[in-house]
Amino acid sequence: MNISKTDGNITTPLGFKAIGIHSGVKNKRKDLGLIVSDKPAAAAAVYTLNAIQAAPLRLTKESVAKNGLIQAVIANSGNANACTGPQGEEDALSMQRSVASLLGVQEDLVAVASTGVIGVPMPMDIITPGIDKLVPAAGKDAAKAFSEAILTTDTFAKTTCYEATIGDKKITLAGISKGSGMINPNMATMLGFITTDAAIEPEFLQLALSSAVDKTFNCITVDGDTSTNDMVLVMANGLAGNEGLTPEHKDWPVFIKLIGLVCEDLAKLIARDGEGATKLIEVDVKGAASDKEAVQVAKSVVGSSLVKTAVYGTDANWGRIIAAIGYSGASVNPDTIDTAIGPFQMLKDSQPLVFSEEEAKAYLENDSILITIDLKNGEGSGKAWGCDLTYDYVRINASYRS
Amino acid sequence: MNISKTDGNITTPLGFKAIGIHSGVKNKRKDLGLIVSDKPAAAAAVYTLNAIQAAPLRLTKESVAKNGLIQAVIANSGNANACTGPQGEEDALSMQRSVASLLGVQEDLVAVASTGVIGVPMPMDIITPGIDKLVPAAGKDAAKAFSEAILTTDTFAKTTCYEATIGDKKITLAGISKGSGMINPNMATMLGFITTDAAIEPEFLQLALSSAVDKTFNCITVDGDTSTNDMVLVMANGLAGNEGLTPEHKDWPVFIKLIGLVCEDLAKLIARDGEGATKLIEVDVKGAASDKEAVQVAKSVVGSSLVKTAVYGTDANWGRIIAAIGYSGASVNPDTIDTAIGPFQMLKDSQPLVFSEEEAKAYLENDSILITIDLKNGEGSGKAWGCDLTYDYVRINASYRS
Repeated sequence: MNISKTDGNITTPLGFKAIGIHSGVKNKRKDLGLIVSDKPAAAAAVYTLNAIQAAPLRLTKESVAKNGLIQAVIANSGNANACTGPQGEEDALSMQRSVASLLGVQEDLVAVASTGVIGVPMPMDIITPGIDKLVPAAGKDAAKAFSEAILTTDTFAKTTCYEATIGDKKITLAGISKGSGMINPNMATMLGFITTDAAIEPEFLQLALSSAVDKTFNCITVDGDTSTNDMVLVMANGLAGNEGLTPEHKDWPVFIKLIGLVCEDLAKLIARDGEGATKLIEVDVKGAASDKEAVQVAKSVVGSSLVKTAVYGTDANWGRIIAAIGYSGASVNPDTIDTAIGPFQMLKDSQPLVFSEEEAKAYLENDSILITIDLKNGEGSGKAWGCDLTYDYVRINASYRS
Repeated sequence: MNISKTDGNITTPLGFKAIGIHSGVKNKRKDLGLIVSDKPAAAAAVYTLNAIQAAPLRLTKESVAKNGLIQAVIANSGNANACTGPQGEEDALSMQRSVASLLGVQEDLVAVASTGVIGVPMPMDIITPGIDKLVPAAGKDAAKAFSEAILTTDTFAKTTCYEATIGDKKITLAGISKGSGMINPNMATMLGFITTDAAIEPEFLQLALSSAVDKTFNCITVDGDTSTNDMVLVMANGLAGNEGLTPEHKDWPVFIKLIGLVCEDLAKLIARDGEGATKLIEVDVKGAASDKEAVQVAKSVVGSSLVKTAVYGTDANWGRIIAAIGYSGASVNPDTIDTAIGPFQMLKDSQPLVFSEEEAKAYLENDSILITIDLKNGEGSGKAWGCDLTYDYVRINASYRS
């Protein structure tokens, strides 16, 4: 496939602009951002499964569901507008209206996303005039400003970009995300925004996004907590001029691969930047009864507090790995499990092998750790990503509001 | 009900003796213990749901299943005899045989339990002569010696005792447990041993134990990890001389209450002594669609890393509580949730109330923290227990083997 990674940004796909500013919701850092497409874009999104959903998320869900089209995303950090009752709904609507009026577009073409403190009314006296100051532009600086405006306890902005050829047209797919804790204290949420100039109907875009999210954003864990505001949204404005993509299109696999790569990059960046994290952990499982069970095992291992602390402590503690495999709920044969940490095979057929503790410890000093598992119980395979559990996770979360 | 808590121990029920010694599996501390009943006792047990089960656990399961009778329990710490292959099975059998021969009882009347390092062969050259040195006795010191012999990273021995009247007979029910992490590094496992002189058939004893464990041991979480060696075993030798207990017996509810109290005490002691813990957290849920869903919500909240770190940091962070309620998977009405931390009501109908942050912070300095939740969505109620997540949890688990 003719796919390449570029140093582009969310304004690299044709017809997208962005901006981010400091409006005053947060003390100093940027806190309000806008992405806008020259024309209404096919939209698809996935939302938190948390039963408690923030007002902006519910409004965006409604707006996307209406016509499958979105032209702009307004996002703020510093306040999640969650558990804020009827006033919260009114405030989310008001943000939508202000952006619609600023850009001269229909209200239901504006998506709203918020992240930050839960249960505190939105400071609309700051947000509304802030929106009026937003001047979206194309280019690296504008995209960077947006990516910074959605950060909370993240330590770096997360962005990626790929291009590919569909038929004879070049299409570009770029994304930005934020994470840190799955939910942080009152500072919450995983967000992902993806822009593309590909031409594709909303229903097929949703299909592609859902399948990509299942294997990427849904396979990372920082602390197992799920926010009230999580959302991944993709906009496809069609300006690349390709023949509309459908599952029957000969280049459909290219598009699926492309959106998968963007989502995987964004998800891994979130895992690596988990609160207090010093290392990215990837768990790669094969030989499971199904792909679903492989992912189940991978998530169980990467989510285990004991595995996470062992990686932090550079301790090649395979006992914790096999225990987490065992309680994953997947069907496993207790006598056929192989496990390796990096290049070091530790278990063969569930029995310990001799390895150099010293060399394994040295491997665990790396900032990307690979754990591979072969259950030898079927053909299923899958991956999950997470991070180590450190003193800093406790420090950040035990002292955040203080 | 005529139930009272006493300062008795596992040798207080008639006809039980115990002992614990340092055999040499661990460097200094006691590591080998024995409980023995004067006569074969009705036995019931629950075992880990982990698909990877240690050899001694599988052997005990088989032995209890045979006739529902157990007369002795041999337990060691320092080595879990897990992931040790055919040799591990041989070693567990050998421990069973040595004890049978020491006491002159049938082999399948001996339960075997191990906790400690995974994947290292049992040092039978130490264990076998150690067993020969065991001289069980009645009394506080002997019971204490057993309770110490099963500890790993626990910081204190866990014991409780209750008595009640069944018909015109006094019966006594006592227990000992160990925990610390649900599974620790290579030092693993939650164990519980309960002795009683009540007369009851194995099948009814199993009924009573399973129901008690569901509401107690299965409602605690330290780090969400489940060991390969978890086991709770009860022995009822009938020496109290009561009329055999059945669900139709008028005093059945007394026995159910009694075993429930013993299990709850032991489970809460494990939660309080979770690795690195400074506080016991109890989450009390009502108004759920069912009792099962109430427990589901309680476990989700008490298991949330963010709630655990907030309690450690004395931060009355109800945003994390409502998020954990939302992602518990239980059916909730997002607009009717009440939440309190201790006496401080924080949420009414999912909306924040005004409370004194200072007073709430002072409450959170206590070593037992109560979080109450009313979902106002049904009649179900339930509880779960856990502990705070601290720097020490990370320290213990990041540096254990080093």
